[in-house]
Amino acid sequence: MGNKTDEFIEKNRDLYIKWLLDFCEIPSVAAQNRGMTEAVAYLEDLFQTAFSLEPEKLQTEGFPVVFAELKGKSDKTLSFYNHYDVQPEDPVELWQTPAFEPDIRDGKIYARGVADNKGNLIARLAAVHAIQQVGEELPVNIKYIFEGEEEIGSLNLPKFAKEYAEKIHSDGCVWEFGYRDADGTLQVSLGVKGMLYVELKSSGANTDLHSAQAAIIESPVWKLVWALNTLKDKDEKILIPGFYDDIEPITELDDQMLSHYQLDEAALLNKLELDGFVLGLNGHELKHKHIFEPTCNICGIVSGYTGEGTKTVLPSEATAKIDFRLVPGQDPEKILQQLREHLDANGFEDISILVTSSEMAARTKPDEAIVDAMISVAKQYSDKEPNIVPNTPGTGPMYELCQALGIPSASFGVGNFESNNHAPNENINIDDYIEGIKMVAALIFEFSKKFETEGSVR
Amino acid sequence: MGNKTDEFIEKNRDLYIKWLLDFCEIPSVAAQNRGMTEAVAYLEDLFQTAFSLEPEKLQTEGFPVVFAELKGKSDKTLSFYNHYDVQPEDPVELWQTPAFEPDIRDGKIYARGVADNKGNLIARLAAVHAIQQVGEELPVNIKYIFEGEEEIGSLNLPKFAKEYAEKIHSDGCVWEFGYRDADGTLQVSLGVKGMLYVELKSSGANTDLHSAQAAIIESPVWKLVWALNTLKDKDEKILIPGFYDDIEPITELDDQMLSHYQLDEAALLNKLELDGFVLGLNGHELKHKHIFEPTCNICGIVSGYTGEGTKTVLPSEATAKIDFRLVPGQDPEKILQQLREHLDANGFEDISILVTSSEMAARTKPDEAIVDAMISVAKQYSDKEPNIVPNTPGTGPMYELCQALGIPSASFGVGNFESNNHAPNENINIDDYIEGIKMVAALIFEFSKKFETEGSVR
Repeated sequence: MGNKTDEFIEKNRDLYIKWLLDFCEIPSVAAQNRGMTEAVAYLEDLFQTAFSLEPEKLQTEGFPVVFAELKGKSDKTLSFYNHYDVQPEDPVELWQTPAFEPDIRDGKIYARGVADNKGNLIARLAAVHAIQQVGEELPVNIKYIFEGEEEIGSLNLPKFAKEYAEKIHSDGCVWEFGYRDADGTLQVSLGVKGMLYVELKSSGANTDLHSAQAAIIESPVWKLVWALNTLKDKDEKILIPGFYDDIEPITELDDQMLSHYQLDEAALLNKLELDGFVLGLNGHELKHKHIFEPTCNICGIVSGYTGEGTKTVLPSEATAKIDFRLVPGQDPEKILQQLREHLDANGFEDISILVTSSEMAARTKPDEAIVDAMISVAKQYSDKEPNIVPNTPGTGPMYELCQALGIPSASFGVGNFESNNHAPNENINIDDYIEGIKMVAALIFEFSKKFETEGSVR
Repeated sequence: MGNKTDEFIEKNRDLYIKWLLDFCEIPSVAAQNRGMTEAVAYLEDLFQTAFSLEPEKLQTEGFPVVFAELKGKSDKTLSFYNHYDVQPEDPVELWQTPAFEPDIRDGKIYARGVADNKGNLIARLAAVHAIQQVGEELPVNIKYIFEGEEEIGSLNLPKFAKEYAEKIHSDGCVWEFGYRDADGTLQVSLGVKGMLYVELKSSGANTDLHSAQAAIIESPVWKLVWALNTLKDKDEKILIPGFYDDIEPITELDDQMLSHYQLDEAALLNKLELDGFVLGLNGHELKHKHIFEPTCNICGIVSGYTGEGTKTVLPSEATAKIDFRLVPGQDPEKILQQLREHLDANGFEDISILVTSSEMAARTKPDEAIVDAMISVAKQYSDKEPNIVPNTPGTGPMYELCQALGIPSASFGVGNFESNNHAPNENINIDDYIEGIKMVAALIFEFSKKFETEGSVR
């Protein structure tokens, strides 16, 4: 079944590239409420063009979820979760070409969001379009769930998932992202880390002061520095009491997967111009930390004068943005409470905490049909075994949208080892993109077959 | 001698206010190299208008020093040190009216630099102008030394002072600034703290990364936070070994002055909307800390994403700007070396240090003619004893320009307790400004008298 569809996809490369380039021109930065309406309108047009179908705009308290369903032969359903919002483009000055003017060079497309997550979103539409255009009937129902707030923490998705549980239900969900390793091996990922994203704010006098006053007036920056210092030590140990208590033990199967999981240390260090990894780790320990351990990262910090030259000022406030990446078992609500108690216990009662994202981790079992189908497809399109990852080090609302509803979810996609997600010069390889479309088409049939041959594998 | 001059000053209020407003319209921010040429041109015009005199522009490696000399009756010389540069105006959004569009409301002039230091600079020109306009002869020679780099640490002034030692020599120097306490009492200040201003920079990967990578890639922000934490503890003790070693002991006379020095604690706390001072100090201990103790202050810190909303990023670098205010005996060069050694010893060898300012503290003895004259004038213009301060908590190149050349220096001026130097809504009272002009005129005669009556008091 793949061949005719693959030929069609190959012949229509330019069309599918154009769909993606046009989408990437829209600066749909949810954090800054830019281009969001345009992105939704673009998707509505594309559904119309590709499937003569009007998608639903399911309202949330934030940006709407674009939802569409296409009927297939069987009563089984495969769903695709993607997001149409992207990260802000700064630092703007480090982009070789403007973030929202997609540029093709050396076989790659450069644009904010092309890897995370517009490339995958369009590939999944293109695959179904191609199947239909060559006259094949869809073997399963297809559901598209495209949200607009993934990059700002999917704050409204848990409520959405509960409200529309029936509508979005499926027998397997293809998660939003997917990457290739440095050697081209495709990753199949079975889960995501959770997240607690907070903004800590420390306040002093009601105005910035001449820094001569620093002798007698408390500094909110020093207070923030001292508070941050109590959160994590130089051995990367997170010091909030109870932080590690609820982490689920790693299963033998997870650990086996880890031993097959490839992390090209030399390539990564070379790319980032670094001498080594954190704490001098390598091999199994490094992979363990990457996949199975939670983090406490400072995404941003700012206070006082940050311009050129010298300004002698005692700042009136200081802010730090921190993301904790959580692993299965850790509840962001509980971590938040532990953080508050920890700050209070250390004399930082007056540092405020604003939560901007709160998500549980999720991990799908490797024996599910969706995982099996992905591995089969990956093997069809490569002579290399895919790289199965128990969960990615990244985050998404997989728990709320899938695991809590009993939907197995896994991911593969069109990104690569140097895609620069969330960073300047984000990109994908055009060849990966076209092959990614073919693989999604193949997955739809492969997923259907798992149920035909075995009744239900669940 | 004062009366005729004072009457002239009173009659010409509007003229002298206009001189100041016009000067404050020029955004002479040395840190950003804005408006500096215009500020020098304005001073050249004003010298021409006021004295039919062309001042010299003495070149340095940075902005020129504007210098002028007016001959008087005696061979004694009084010099005025001021600066024509100002602090940057940010945070711009907190100004009620634009920083460089001087605004008069409620008897005050609001503008960046009006208190620090343009009000004093113009007052000292206006005083001599008024004396000459009423037909009085100057009793002493007058020298004006107006530099353009005070707010960026007067980096070129030490070399300038050595090169032009003879030209700038005087028998007493009126230092740039001066303030009134909350109850209107005039401060006479005998010295300044020194300063070491450094920018600490910590670097990580060669680009910002998706924060999922924080599990395995070192964070330059965490490194900076940990390094800063080793510099000062929560008890405000600076932890750099040797930092306090060279501080000169406080003399009995200094301590006596401190007991007369007024710090209106309630007024200051009320103005800043604070519950208390650092470490809960008050009274003598608070004043001691303010005047006699060095500081380690974070003027600014920045890393990663500081915009709206959520961005999950592992930043590639982090920077902090720190000013150490030093006291007599402390050598900024030595402190810098101690800082480097301290960072190295704590595993922060790769945090770089950029020095942007380095100045020694200075303190004039209270029995000098210039001090005596200031106190006499202060008493003439008020029924309150002036508030004598051994040194201000602020910094300036007094050591290099005066103390090292054997020139006694002290200061009074037109600022007030709520002048908001280096902060939004900087201002002075118009009445203080006009009285300040009169007091400078009176000081010129009073200073001369000290030598007439006693030969030389030195």
